[in-house]
Amino acid sequence: MEGKTYPEFSRRYPLLLKTLMKRPVSLYPDEIGVVYRNPDTGQYQRFTWREWYERTCRLANAMESSLGIRSGTPDEPGDRVGTMALNHHRHLELYYAAPCIGAVLHAINMRLSLDHIVHTINHAEDKILFFDDLVLPLVETIYDRIKPTVEKFVYMSDGGGVPQTKIEPIYHYEELLKEQPSEKEWPFLDEDTHATLCYTTATTGLPKGVMFTHRQLYLQALHIIARTSWSTDPAIPHLGEATIPMLNTPLYHVHGWGAPHYYVFQASKIVLPGRFTPEGFCDLVQTEKVTNTGVVPTMLAMLVEYEDLKKYDLSSLRNIGVGGAALPLGLKNKAEELIPGFTATSGYGMTETAPAAIGAFAKRYMRDWPKEELDKIRVKTGLPAVGVEVDVIDEDGKPVPRDDETIGEIVIRGPWIMERYYKDPEKTAEVWKDGWFHTGDVAKIDAQGYITIVDRVRDVIRSGAEMVPTVLLENLTAMADFVLEATYVGVPDPIWGERPLAIVKPVPGATESEEDLCKFLEAEGVEKGKITKWMLPDFIAFTDEIPKTSVGKYDKITIKKNLEEFLSKAKRIRQA
Amino acid sequence: MEGKTYPEFSRRYPLLLKTLMKRPVSLYPDEIGVVYRNPDTGQYQRFTWREWYERTCRLANAMESSLGIRSGTPDEPGDRVGTMALNHHRHLELYYAAPCIGAVLHAINMRLSLDHIVHTINHAEDKILFFDDLVLPLVETIYDRIKPTVEKFVYMSDGGGVPQTKIEPIYHYEELLKEQPSEKEWPFLDEDTHATLCYTTATTGLPKGVMFTHRQLYLQALHIIARTSWSTDPAIPHLGEATIPMLNTPLYHVHGWGAPHYYVFQASKIVLPGRFTPEGFCDLVQTEKVTNTGVVPTMLAMLVEYEDLKKYDLSSLRNIGVGGAALPLGLKNKAEELIPGFTATSGYGMTETAPAAIGAFAKRYMRDWPKEELDKIRVKTGLPAVGVEVDVIDEDGKPVPRDDETIGEIVIRGPWIMERYYKDPEKTAEVWKDGWFHTGDVAKIDAQGYITIVDRVRDVIRSGAEMVPTVLLENLTAMADFVLEATYVGVPDPIWGERPLAIVKPVPGATESEEDLCKFLEAEGVEKGKITKWMLPDFIAFTDEIPKTSVGKYDKITIKKNLEEFLSKAKRIRQA
Repeated sequence: MEGKTYPEFSRRYPLLLKTLMKRPVSLYPDEIGVVYRNPDTGQYQRFTWREWYERTCRLANAMESSLGIRSGTPDEPGDRVGTMALNHHRHLELYYAAPCIGAVLHAINMRLSLDHIVHTINHAEDKILFFDDLVLPLVETIYDRIKPTVEKFVYMSDGGGVPQTKIEPIYHYEELLKEQPSEKEWPFLDEDTHATLCYTTATTGLPKGVMFTHRQLYLQALHIIARTSWSTDPAIPHLGEATIPMLNTPLYHVHGWGAPHYYVFQASKIVLPGRFTPEGFCDLVQTEKVTNTGVVPTMLAMLVEYEDLKKYDLSSLRNIGVGGAALPLGLKNKAEELIPGFTATSGYGMTETAPAAIGAFAKRYMRDWPKEELDKIRVKTGLPAVGVEVDVIDEDGKPVPRDDETIGEIVIRGPWIMERYYKDPEKTAEVWKDGWFHTGDVAKIDAQGYITIVDRVRDVIRSGAEMVPTVLLENLTAMADFVLEATYVGVPDPIWGERPLAIVKPVPGATESEEDLCKFLEAEGVEKGKITKWMLPDFIAFTDEIPKTSVGKYDKITIKKNLEEFLSKAKRIRQA
Repeated sequence: MEGKTYPEFSRRYPLLLKTLMKRPVSLYPDEIGVVYRNPDTGQYQRFTWREWYERTCRLANAMESSLGIRSGTPDEPGDRVGTMALNHHRHLELYYAAPCIGAVLHAINMRLSLDHIVHTINHAEDKILFFDDLVLPLVETIYDRIKPTVEKFVYMSDGGGVPQTKIEPIYHYEELLKEQPSEKEWPFLDEDTHATLCYTTATTGLPKGVMFTHRQLYLQALHIIARTSWSTDPAIPHLGEATIPMLNTPLYHVHGWGAPHYYVFQASKIVLPGRFTPEGFCDLVQTEKVTNTGVVPTMLAMLVEYEDLKKYDLSSLRNIGVGGAALPLGLKNKAEELIPGFTATSGYGMTETAPAAIGAFAKRYMRDWPKEELDKIRVKTGLPAVGVEVDVIDEDGKPVPRDDETIGEIVIRGPWIMERYYKDPEKTAEVWKDGWFHTGDVAKIDAQGYITIVDRVRDVIRSGAEMVPTVLLENLTAMADFVLEATYVGVPDPIWGERPLAIVKPVPGATESEEDLCKFLEAEGVEKGKITKWMLPDFIAFTDEIPKTSVGKYDKITIKKNLEEFLSKAKRIRQA
């Protein structure tokens, strides 16, 4: 008798998102699994894992039967399902229903410009668009431009019924679900089936699309879990089944930084605030006993300034990580005073890396180091994420010496790094060279392997034969307690090629002058060996507002377009 | 310009053991990573991660150049490398060097009978045999029978030089390493390349071989890490980078239960005792500040009885798990009194499952349950391991009702379940049916998903139309504090077909009688609803020794062969 074998159920058992989705319903069917607080009405909706899972089954059945969504293969991506939605239970249902039937979830970044939103929908060829009631006016505005692409629209709201609109055909999300069975035999897809499509925010040119497979997202989740499990750094808390996370990072930002995958797999109750508001944040922490969350500095500033903060019981908080941008020292100190469980962490990732790439964490032997020594480690960008290879290379492709000084480009490869830009072989060829994905970020690396990003390749200020790393200057400047935000660009210089201009937004009411800032940079930067004297800015411009991109990064394109205007406000401080 | 892509460095980046091996040397090159205490001399050897890694590179280079080991592909396994070795640094070097150059590591179970050892070496076609100095007489004994298969022998000892022996050609491990470079460019193998070959212990017939791929072992390690990370059960401790484990489970038992993979990946200092001795255990805990370890009940009994136990500082221990066999209540109580960090856990796995399959752990909502309620959960076999599917099915292949009563066979499938028995399609066809691996173990399942194994399919006692589950009876009997060990077999019966005979080894000096045991079973079993009256044994035989297999399981084949002898010692207690 010849034995038939089942590689697809053994050594080739596929790594699929359905495995993540099915764990909580199998372990904790009757526990509350998903909580949504509508940020406008303050109303709560709570779902047990069974209820959430059954809704996800109904949604998947509706996608297949009522909406005609087709599954894909590794060679041919399934139909694209666009979403324009806040962080709520429906968006989390879409996060699993679409990929688990073999379709591709395209969570549209609603903070892009209208032109870019239209571009991503048409470039992705979104067949269906799921959108929140709040976004109706926006969808109506772009309707004529996306109508040739989008065949069906689904309206999502807590209340019933679809409003009067020119958009058609339009369905109501809850009505669609009602008609469907609450069970589903999820297919055993090939693990290389595409699951998601994300677009870069495109500080230059048009947004670029990146597809990720089930395998990629599954492996990213598992490796993030391993990393947080191993950490002996209190700033990277161990995430166990008892963790109650709140997801403030939008689900349309590169997989919500992975949280919807690893938190569902570990069966944590997931708290969804729609969008961040100080009131919603405090109310949810108090009511749901949130233990962990992450915010960007702007959200933290809003929290610190929230006058009702002390009225809430925030004692359940174990860890609030801050990431996404440099954290000003003044804000950090204020937050530490006011908010229990506050810690600052930093990390680095991009759409192309899904996004886990580099994270700041202290090594085991640093456990007992004094805080000031640890802080020197924490301001670095960090160590490679578990499971990926990261290096910093020079222009010949050789690793730079680990001297924390020589700079090169960060390159990366690993199981969840993107293979290609969607329908864009030219851009793909620019970033994949010699078996490494080239990030376009410039960094140095120290003897212990800690990487510090100093700039984007294209933002580096070229002064003489040297490169002035602007991110380093920005972070240093933000350390001044009278500075709220700061960025640097190059100004044409007849001798040096370029010289640095600092554009600075001071703390409201601050009385310090441009000269005071220069003194600070000399004392904290030059004298402490963080920068050299020739990196000091020749010009400093104080301003009320620094232009930013949709994801809150300094918009250097716009700044450079309006360079004359900033220069006219600037004071010349010194001459190189 | 068309972009070349690199799927092998992105979405198909292979899951290889080299990724696990390289993490500690990259993070902690100068920390002590591997500690070995020779159990006979008491001498310590300590290696930094860099030293251990460089030795592993040298070994791999020697395998390729001096020993001519060839790499494999997914279709054609690489050369088999046999080991007969205790738990020491060299064995851990072999664990990585052989698979990472594409060869297949066959860690030979030295506790098998000589005939079975010879069979596994010849069946595996081991091209090279690495063996410990201690095993020299054994290898000389079987030399003529394995000589046609094994081309080269490598002798491993702390001292230099190879002794006088008829074995040839023979090399000395340390001499081989000396000649080689300490660096290595590890190949990017296909993740489906075979990495290990394990043999079952074969309670019936000959040992069967099972091969596992890099992907399978990598994924098992990651999922075990996730499970221990999530656990809120204090008996399943969180394993972080600060964990210091001692590996008492032999490395030739199904990958040492996975520990050499996940502990290396998490860069824990690994403490290796050679083989278990109470003195070595205590000395290593005290010297190396061991936090976690696992033992089988026999080792625990040796520890509890070790007269010098109290002379050692064992305060670093956080968790000693006990698994592998039922834990007698008397031993449990004594261990809790004497040994800090003692907890009892149970688990279930087999060679074919690599071995992670089912583990006892308390769910999140049981955290605050009283100990007696929790203990009821802990005596169950447990819940499916994270990442695999497990079910209990009846003879028609349907899942049994979750009533904790109806029994069926355990079936399993998932990423690290074996695909086939090596060179044995007939046996493979017996276990793989309808897309499920059939374990041959009989179990029931409760409403919360907890599985309880009641027997091996072939060990069930068939009495009338019913099946008497012997494991259930064995565990119940072991709860009596005057019982050290107990097993059950069926005795032919003219009316019922079979009736149970209990074979019991009492605690030394115990004065209780067979009738006392029967009263205990009635009070603790029948009256508490754990067993029904007709499951009570008709015969009880007290004995000094119960036959066991090489891995410590009750050897029912031998018992059944000598049934008359046991029956002659037995007292008839009742008549069904």
